[in-house]
Amino acid sequence: MTTPSASAAPFSESRQREVAQALGAVLPHGCVLFRLEDTRPYECDGLSAFRQPPMIVALPENEAQVVAVLEVCRRMNVPIVPRGAGTGLSGGAMPIADGVVLSTAKLNRIVRLDAQARTAVVQPGVRNLAISEAAMPFGLYYAPDPSSQIACTIGGNVAENSGGVHCLKYGLTLHNVLRVRVATIGGDIIELGSEAPDAPGLDLLAVFIGSEGMLGIVTEVTVKLVPRPAVQRVIMASFGDIVTGANAVARVIAAGIIPAGLEMMDQTSSRMVEPFVHAGYDLDAAAILLCEADGTPEEVEDEIARMTAVLREAGATAIAVSDSEAERLKFWSGRKNAFPAAGRISPDYYCMDGTIPRKHLAQVLAGIAQMEVKYGLRCANVFHAGDGNLHPLILFDANVPDELVRAEAFGADILALCVAVGGTITGEHGVGIEKIDSMCVQFGAAELSAFFGVKRAFDPPALLNPNKAIPTLQRCAEFGRMRVTGGVLPHPDLPRF
Amino acid sequence: MTTPSASAAPFSESRQREVAQALGAVLPHGCVLFRLEDTRPYECDGLSAFRQPPMIVALPENEAQVVAVLEVCRRMNVPIVPRGAGTGLSGGAMPIADGVVLSTAKLNRIVRLDAQARTAVVQPGVRNLAISEAAMPFGLYYAPDPSSQIACTIGGNVAENSGGVHCLKYGLTLHNVLRVRVATIGGDIIELGSEAPDAPGLDLLAVFIGSEGMLGIVTEVTVKLVPRPAVQRVIMASFGDIVTGANAVARVIAAGIIPAGLEMMDQTSSRMVEPFVHAGYDLDAAAILLCEADGTPEEVEDEIARMTAVLREAGATAIAVSDSEAERLKFWSGRKNAFPAAGRISPDYYCMDGTIPRKHLAQVLAGIAQMEVKYGLRCANVFHAGDGNLHPLILFDANVPDELVRAEAFGADILALCVAVGGTITGEHGVGIEKIDSMCVQFGAAELSAFFGVKRAFDPPALLNPNKAIPTLQRCAEFGRMRVTGGVLPHPDLPRF
Repeated sequence: MTTPSASAAPFSESRQREVAQALGAVLPHGCVLFRLEDTRPYECDGLSAFRQPPMIVALPENEAQVVAVLEVCRRMNVPIVPRGAGTGLSGGAMPIADGVVLSTAKLNRIVRLDAQARTAVVQPGVRNLAISEAAMPFGLYYAPDPSSQIACTIGGNVAENSGGVHCLKYGLTLHNVLRVRVATIGGDIIELGSEAPDAPGLDLLAVFIGSEGMLGIVTEVTVKLVPRPAVQRVIMASFGDIVTGANAVARVIAAGIIPAGLEMMDQTSSRMVEPFVHAGYDLDAAAILLCEADGTPEEVEDEIARMTAVLREAGATAIAVSDSEAERLKFWSGRKNAFPAAGRISPDYYCMDGTIPRKHLAQVLAGIAQMEVKYGLRCANVFHAGDGNLHPLILFDANVPDELVRAEAFGADILALCVAVGGTITGEHGVGIEKIDSMCVQFGAAELSAFFGVKRAFDPPALLNPNKAIPTLQRCAEFGRMRVTGGVLPHPDLPRF
Repeated sequence: MTTPSASAAPFSESRQREVAQALGAVLPHGCVLFRLEDTRPYECDGLSAFRQPPMIVALPENEAQVVAVLEVCRRMNVPIVPRGAGTGLSGGAMPIADGVVLSTAKLNRIVRLDAQARTAVVQPGVRNLAISEAAMPFGLYYAPDPSSQIACTIGGNVAENSGGVHCLKYGLTLHNVLRVRVATIGGDIIELGSEAPDAPGLDLLAVFIGSEGMLGIVTEVTVKLVPRPAVQRVIMASFGDIVTGANAVARVIAAGIIPAGLEMMDQTSSRMVEPFVHAGYDLDAAAILLCEADGTPEEVEDEIARMTAVLREAGATAIAVSDSEAERLKFWSGRKNAFPAAGRISPDYYCMDGTIPRKHLAQVLAGIAQMEVKYGLRCANVFHAGDGNLHPLILFDANVPDELVRAEAFGADILALCVAVGGTITGEHGVGIEKIDSMCVQFGAAELSAFFGVKRAFDPPALLNPNKAIPTLQRCAEFGRMRVTGGVLPHPDLPRF
């Protein structure tokens, strides 16, 4: 990305005092932070290459206080950046210098859980995994599982339309959220969606999910819960070349099977992670597929047998099936630790997040292999193969200036290839500030105008997370090239991919 | 509904001539209709109680001509009502007296069908069933199956987010459309959605689907195709009371089964249809459930066994399983002919289309039974039980003025009950002009303002299907009561429900 154009104007102390006082009048003691040592922890999200402490951090404790914060900001014309746990990878929660960060950290209550209806109503600051923990006694869980699920919040998941390794079968956040309550910049509370299958009127729930905080502040989320499967087993299959592996993915899907997970790693990735996690990967394989089945013991047995047959027929050179939960977790450990492993073997890496129609998988992988030669940089490919969601990790050393430039060009080339085959520039990490210029590659002026029209309809004063996610036409005109993230993981204790 | 507020202003002959000439300049000979004998066939859709011939009918033959029609209308400030096959049940395609009906009838080409990617790209005027017919040689079909599928078009399905008896398992139009091309009132062509799993930016595809022609004119639709199941079998189960039947629906779902169809009929319905279609229904049963399984022979056998066990345990008094395709179609014939049957036994009927969270099925059915006593009118209940989508048929005689008033109040009461338990005023028939006042019950001022904001973003001059689907706040303020449809079926040769 180019340097973010989010306002970096300094603010005067008197302005800061005025806004902090106005917020202090509507929030409890200790819920307005403005000293630099207090605002510093909010200076970035998972896209740690860009840091900017906000003028003020507001921590409302309930919906009425969220509305009150929005009213103060509207009255005083202060831009607002909403923030969940700050685990996002595209800079969606990066602060604005003269703005307020509205943190949902204190809105962390599970309001109710209805096991019969299989729904939970939660506040936005509830952690993704906390929902599944609360649902566990009822044999239920919340399906989308981004790898940051220990830390990330459901409000952030709504903002980014988060996925995870199981979204091939269970869907993205969009498919697992029934309703949201939203505080608008106008001070209204609106409810979008419904617990019933379809909602009349325009489907604004779908627009809101993935809107990266630009349309309103979510104050309550009703999620679907699904039955915890009795059994989960995973197949690890080896392939002698990557195109054969990619075609095997297509064959599994073509056989009418929807695995609970369908992940692929290339040889660069498996050799990168194996010394680190000892997952037992076949290091001679050009590609490894992980295919998970879940359900009743009979269903899993049947699906494992069918997948094994398809993979064998598709040319797998070796097949192993997990025989215990410990072995299943071992098979997954390499995939789940690919990003930290990249950080160990390379000073920096650039994690891409493009999606493509599944049928073009082999073609795009071949294209990336050519780019490795062209740019003289290695690229480890790990991806949600079933979804066509690629996470190429371009390895480079930012201390060698030329490598950074080459990595930039490499990344831009990958996204352009994704778009060229009918795919998109982001699968699950959002646009934020990171991909905002690539949006110019993805969309034309008419589409961008439609986005801005909807943005204006929700946020006429343009105070909600401005300059994120949707580039202005002017910005697109100025767009020349892409820059890379640093290789720093903001929370190195969390597995993330 | 109250009398539609769609403009009924007469137009001058010179105005008609001017607009027709301008359209004639951009459309081929014979594609501009303005004589009353030519415009009369377009005077209503499936909501035949309201009729209004349009000033002009335009029949563009390609996308460029659609854009040209929109440009003429925008320049001359002429409202536009888009129209597919005119099978809609809520008056979404009812003309405006001084407006243009833009028919997609001539945009009826299947552009391409990609069996490997399981997608088809079609023009909006292609009939729903024609897609499945074209996909049949590849063992594929297009899943959503509104009962008007012989006649209705994919463009109309997109406008109404149409469902069908199989949408419990396969989803609504929203879940089966990957991308649309749209001509905007501003003369642009925009593409919404993607063949990739997720799209960056705002999810405007979801907003567009079900927007009832208010946001733009769809010029091309990319649909998902799914494999045709090898086997389909249906269980017919009887229940001694309707609450037990409703609870059985909940139990099937709770068992983790997603049947291909899960339909319920009450005794009034089964006794109404049996003399007409001889489906072999148990006329002593207070409720009949139809539960369909589809898939491979093994899958179907397994699912039929599991559903049978659950239904028995839930208190089914009799269970029959179709043994042949002929028997399967016989079991379905009663359900599929419920509406025509209502027309045979009652001078008029009012078909409602509410949805409710499944868990409230028993409660809502009990409520409707109480309303039958309260209003002194019979109500036959047929519904997509698995989806919680009710189609109560209120039987009345419009020639008895008091019955019409009672039927109105009865219908409004049912929708209010649906909303009260967290449901919605329409499942799959859309809002159009029929439900526009009930939208005031469903939504508050803030939500309606959000809808209008998005509408304005797409259609600043408010020329696309004005006064449909979203009521103005003024209209809501004036809203007092609901009126009923006539019992006339516009296409009596089509089964419809």
